[in-house]
Amino acid sequence: MKTEIDYELRPVGFIQSPLTERKNAPRQGSENAPAAWIELLPEFADALLGMDIGAEVWVLTWLHQGRRDTLQVYPRGDRANLLTGVFFTRSPDRPNPIGLHRTTVVELNGTRIKLANIEAINGTPVIDIKPVLSAEKNGR
Amino acid sequence: MKTEIDYELRPVGFIQSPLTERKNAPRQGSENAPAAWIELLPEFADALLGMDIGAEVWVLTWLHQGRRDTLQVYPRGDRANLLTGVFFTRSPDRPNPIGLHRTTVVELNGTRIKLANIEAINGTPVIDIKPVLSAEKNGR
Repeated sequence: MKTEIDYELRPVGFIQSPLTERKNAPRQGSENAPAAWIELLPEFADALLGMDIGAEVWVLTWLHQGRRDTLQVYPRGDRANLLTGVFFTRSPDRPNPIGLHRTTVVELNGTRIKLANIEAINGTPVIDIKPVLSAEKNGR
Repeated sequence: MKTEIDYELRPVGFIQSPLTERKNAPRQGSENAPAAWIELLPEFADALLGMDIGAEVWVLTWLHQGRRDTLQVYPRGDRANLLTGVFFTRSPDRPNPIGLHRTTVVELNGTRIKLANIEAINGTPVIDIKPVLSAEKNGR
């Protein structure tokens, strides 16, 4: 008997950022994105054990304003670029609008985690945090 | 009126791999993981436009055998390691069991995408594919 797979995400926290509108957000975290906080839901606090300041992390967000029926885009919204499948772009419009952000932990305060820079807008759900592996730090 | 956020993932494809059991899978793709295919669902084929052989990609999977109530683990299952919050490990046991795999496209055949190496087991749902950004290739 095959077990049904549960595909429901649970938000583990939310982004608190001065960015409030998608149209004003930088395209990538490295493009002058501001510092911001993750406000973790209290029930996930134990999952931070061992995290420290200076840690390089992947933050995975749920880009809830993304259009899930978009399969092709002009990268960076520029029609001078070739039309490209969303699996070969970082567009927030994609079947599962997951944002992948590499950043650094700069402050920890209970369930609040300050990130050096992230381009996600205020209120964006956070779905996972992972350490950057050394192979990834070295560009594999 | 606040819009309700839809947190339901849609699988976009599935991994076809010689790895069939989690206990035999390598911990990371760089640790002798085998080549494997993504079999994309046909309705997402258009999202591959522009992808080519040699492309470095992030593959995001849904590690459907992960335990979602686990918040702390001994990294690599070794009790000689310090107990660590899952947000500071790459354990498949975590609130949202998303796998993040960096690999290279080595063959493309319609909706089938061959990956150089991936540690996900056969049948694992694929939830997203993204290009590796040049900042990420250079270790940021």
